[in-house]
Amino acid sequence: MNVRAGIIVTGTEVLSGQIADQNGPWVAERLLELGVNVAHVTICGDRPDDMLAQLEFVAGQGVDLIVTTGGLGPTADDLTVAIVAEYCDRPLQPDADLAGTITDIIRGWGRYPSDEDLPDSIQAAIAKQALVPDGADPISPTGTAPGVAVPATGTLPTVLILPGPPRELQAMWPDALNKPAVAEILERGDDVVHETIRAFGLPEPDLAQTLRQAAQDLPGYDLLEITTCMRGGELEIDTRLPRSAVRHYAALKSLLLQEHSDRIYSPDGATVDELVADSLAGRTIATAESCTGGMIAARLTDRPGSSAYTLGGIVSYANEVKTGVLGVPTELIDELGAVSEPVAAAMADGARTVTGADVAVSTSGIAGPGGGVPGKPVGTVCFGVAIAGRPTATVTRRFPGDRALVRTLATNYALHLVRESLTADDSADG
Amino acid sequence: MNVRAGIIVTGTEVLSGQIADQNGPWVAERLLELGVNVAHVTICGDRPDDMLAQLEFVAGQGVDLIVTTGGLGPTADDLTVAIVAEYCDRPLQPDADLAGTITDIIRGWGRYPSDEDLPDSIQAAIAKQALVPDGADPISPTGTAPGVAVPATGTLPTVLILPGPPRELQAMWPDALNKPAVAEILERGDDVVHETIRAFGLPEPDLAQTLRQAAQDLPGYDLLEITTCMRGGELEIDTRLPRSAVRHYAALKSLLLQEHSDRIYSPDGATVDELVADSLAGRTIATAESCTGGMIAARLTDRPGSSAYTLGGIVSYANEVKTGVLGVPTELIDELGAVSEPVAAAMADGARTVTGADVAVSTSGIAGPGGGVPGKPVGTVCFGVAIAGRPTATVTRRFPGDRALVRTLATNYALHLVRESLTADDSADG
Repeated sequence: MNVRAGIIVTGTEVLSGQIADQNGPWVAERLLELGVNVAHVTICGDRPDDMLAQLEFVAGQGVDLIVTTGGLGPTADDLTVAIVAEYCDRPLQPDADLAGTITDIIRGWGRYPSDEDLPDSIQAAIAKQALVPDGADPISPTGTAPGVAVPATGTLPTVLILPGPPRELQAMWPDALNKPAVAEILERGDDVVHETIRAFGLPEPDLAQTLRQAAQDLPGYDLLEITTCMRGGELEIDTRLPRSAVRHYAALKSLLLQEHSDRIYSPDGATVDELVADSLAGRTIATAESCTGGMIAARLTDRPGSSAYTLGGIVSYANEVKTGVLGVPTELIDELGAVSEPVAAAMADGARTVTGADVAVSTSGIAGPGGGVPGKPVGTVCFGVAIAGRPTATVTRRFPGDRALVRTLATNYALHLVRESLTADDSADG
Repeated sequence: MNVRAGIIVTGTEVLSGQIADQNGPWVAERLLELGVNVAHVTICGDRPDDMLAQLEFVAGQGVDLIVTTGGLGPTADDLTVAIVAEYCDRPLQPDADLAGTITDIIRGWGRYPSDEDLPDSIQAAIAKQALVPDGADPISPTGTAPGVAVPATGTLPTVLILPGPPRELQAMWPDALNKPAVAEILERGDDVVHETIRAFGLPEPDLAQTLRQAAQDLPGYDLLEITTCMRGGELEIDTRLPRSAVRHYAALKSLLLQEHSDRIYSPDGATVDELVADSLAGRTIATAESCTGGMIAARLTDRPGSSAYTLGGIVSYANEVKTGVLGVPTELIDELGAVSEPVAAAMADGARTVTGADVAVSTSGIAGPGGGVPGKPVGTVCFGVAIAGRPTATVTRRFPGDRALVRTLATNYALHLVRESLTADDSADG
């Protein structure tokens, strides 16, 4: 890719690790989609010297565009616009129109009587947020913090200044792309294709072996920028390529499917969440969760429109709820323990019965840190899948990691189990 | 703080925004706890030139320690050790002991018959991962990727190389801190205190006003490094200070409590999740969730030991589950709609009835993007709180943002509602 960009994320709360940055990843993805190569992301706190050093570093890496996020708020530690102004030698000027826009937004909250002056704290905030570097182009706020597009200055690249709250930044993005200083750069971006293949249960070294083979055997392999990422039991193989190289990507995809057909569940990037929804094919689903505590239901209902197939579920964390609500026989729990396949099966059956769903999935396991017993160590999870007209299936897995990881892995596994069961059953039908 | 560090996060999947980095924040928090000032975090892809540029930049910022994460895997795009070796001019050497350790770990998986040679792909991975820069100290792997502590070389700082999978990195951290090259730096770290105050519903400009006042009036204010962070409706006020400045922090805390006593719910950093658990004081809790789809139950069961008070809950996404499982009268839904306070009340009551819990909280709302109607726009959520021996309370709120944000804000709000209801009721009792 010819056009390079850097992203500077500001905020002591991000630098110090209190919160995970959402803006760097979001902006990077958008820029890559636009054919712009993101070369560097840097994170700095609210210290002016450190931010200046990062501006100099990123500008020195031959980028055409720097996007900054954060540091536009009303508090004294929000310094981004002032520092960029200093760096580009463009003095700050008050922008009366912008001050009016921010004032209108704040009046629109309805918190301050319309016949009274705004409080001093608010007026000070507006005055600070309506300062713009000389010759730069303000971007209207969606919260109260405006963005700024600062055109290239001498040898310095264009700087696009955006606010820290992800929702505000994302809402302002389309407007920011249309500012002449930014649009001019994007016009030079490549026509890039982004392809994803997803596998479940495929070990990374096995994939690495196949990719080494591809590097040797496939012409045009060098044109493909391949990234592999293991997460929650899933292996994601992402490739970015110039549109002219699609036939080389097709050859790679064939090789991967040939070598790992049993592990690749999504050759075209669809997520397991999407495939579960598809494989239901009009059937409804419910959950019966113990150790995952609602996480599967939350995943199912995360998708817009999921009410078309998700009826709901029971979080039966306590055994009384397993017996009382789901109708799991008390004797079964007394005899075999709650973490057992017969109990998982009874939970899934119970979820179908009480909700009326066609399909139900259940979990009963030991997320830890306590609760492990001989033969059932921490990480052991029993799953059940009940599908109308079929015998209820069960399986037990042991997951590594701490409580949060066991719960996440179990949630992912449950979704894959549903997808596989529905697909297998449907082909058995056919 | 006297000792400064930089963190270099590697991985095209992080740089390109496909996954959010967990390691930078985690390492930054640990270093700050150790009294080490994190000045810069940078993220680079798998391009050697970009990583070299970042090493040079961070080393040039006067840091004593650079921590790198990622890029230690078996695939060809994992280059960190080789690049650091080149940068520090310490040629890579095979480490036979390390190769043996990694081999033992892989044999321990039980996937490869013990009487056969390991496959070529695995042997190649081991050979690559057992290369160590000359004079550096390997850190035993917990996955298969070892870390390396590379002592300061001439004017270059110490470099601590750690793997990308967060669980592996975190498990190796204690061992890494004990490597002489790292321990020597940490001995010079400050004795730093970290304090947190949490508020709910406190606007940032109001806090900014109080902090401006504090900066004017309170001696020693400059010694306090204050970061404010708004997230999910919560405002977190974090302060790091040298231990000698605790009395100045006490003065700031008094001022904040005096100005915002109605909004500060946690002067000592306890999270709402912890306070909910405390305020239950032996009572049990259950949920009845519609638009939050299991997220409240998942939050409640996120805490180790939550089975002591969380019985479970019903995700009543479909109206049939609201009526069939929770016993919400059909007429109520027909007449007022599912998103109404009487239905939220009936859901909370139903959750108590079917689970036997002392306390229940419910949500029924419109998370969007579709489903809004006149008078009930997207973002409208009705809540119910049922507590044994009290009338069931309800409230309606409208949240901003997209589906994910509405669900997150509603989940947070529900937890605060439970905490406030239990605290208020308990004081009414007294």
